[in-house]
Amino acid sequence: MKRALCIMSGGMDSTLCAYLAKKQGFKIIALHFDYRQRTQLKEKECFEKICKDLGVYKSYILNTDLIENIGANALTDTKIPIPKNELGQNEFPITYVPFRNGIFLSIAGALAEKEKCQSIFIGVVEEDGSNYPDCTKKFIKKAQKFINQGTAIKHKISIQTPLIKFKKKDIVSLALKEKVPLELTWSCYENNDLACGECDSCLLRLKGFKQAGFKDKIAYKI
Amino acid sequence: MKRALCIMSGGMDSTLCAYLAKKQGFKIIALHFDYRQRTQLKEKECFEKICKDLGVYKSYILNTDLIENIGANALTDTKIPIPKNELGQNEFPITYVPFRNGIFLSIAGALAEKEKCQSIFIGVVEEDGSNYPDCTKKFIKKAQKFINQGTAIKHKISIQTPLIKFKKKDIVSLALKEKVPLELTWSCYENNDLACGECDSCLLRLKGFKQAGFKDKIAYKI
Repeated sequence: MKRALCIMSGGMDSTLCAYLAKKQGFKIIALHFDYRQRTQLKEKECFEKICKDLGVYKSYILNTDLIENIGANALTDTKIPIPKNELGQNEFPITYVPFRNGIFLSIAGALAEKEKCQSIFIGVVEEDGSNYPDCTKKFIKKAQKFINQGTAIKHKISIQTPLIKFKKKDIVSLALKEKVPLELTWSCYENNDLACGECDSCLLRLKGFKQAGFKDKIAYKI
Repeated sequence: MKRALCIMSGGMDSTLCAYLAKKQGFKIIALHFDYRQRTQLKEKECFEKICKDLGVYKSYILNTDLIENIGANALTDTKIPIPKNELGQNEFPITYVPFRNGIFLSIAGALAEKEKCQSIFIGVVEEDGSNYPDCTKKFIKKAQKFINQGTAIKHKISIQTPLIKFKKKDIVSLALKEKVPLELTWSCYENNDLACGECDSCLLRLKGFKQAGFKDKIAYKI
């Protein structure tokens, strides 16, 4: 049985990706990163519930708190406020982490070698981070070459990004069609209990549900 | 003034690399990884002394204990004995960590973006790890493309590997010629006090000094 390493944050995109991998017949190895982001507690809880629902073969939670030490950003530094209602107003929002997907993919490459996976699934979406160089198709191609050159695996590893060209409304629609439990996912950058409804990530999620014509079942503060 | 990010383990190769970068006129930002390897305490002590001697601009020690969670290897798992007197006998020694340089370089890429570095120096040597796919010139080229595609830096970052084709004896000779304090460096995989003299890394170091016709000033157990 083919094996897929799925990078899963606990959010909608990576969750849908993992369900799509399962549908393609892969045995799932789930990988979650803990980098002491504000909502780590909630994301981990969501990740674990999703893994259970999906029936993954194995799961890893890896510490990447080095991200906190690389640079000040609002996701890990609680002294920097999370921007509210500023979606799309800045080239690089303060929630930007330099080369985060580069770090995540290289770790996934190491784990894919260990677990003998044929594919790595990552839920990058160009629309979300249109200014982020590590969210593009070009970057993913380079990452695939980098991993295949540097690992000792006999077969080639492919990096799959089924959602890269999707809009949030298409993600919501497809997820609901595929019976992905979106109520188990988390998007808010700020809170661990009720989603704030105002950060970039909540705004994107709410827009997606609205445009898809569905109601988001998670609880919001406002 | 140009800036170089130097990945420095505290060993001979990466130390020489950093001194060569300094000689080329770079301002040095030093990066050391702590992944709870057996000799972390000693390596960190060496790294700090070398940074002081070299006069670095800034230094980072980043936690990469996730390596311990990716796979069993003798560097981090004290239940697996370090092989003695087995240099070159195995395709992949038990001290092998999958894609370690891939992980290190991606983190270096993120930090190079933050610190606006023009170059990353890494002391890979093909001879040391002739079977390791992440120690080759081909791999370094792919890594450079991966980092430049995925970071938001205006200029291009170059990855410099001045020692990649060197033999250990050439490293010793060049280091002594350049007045690099090799007595501050550490190579042993096993001990934090006296070098064991029997692990692959000690054997390579001793062979290098012998062939270069110099005496290693660090203390050995045997």
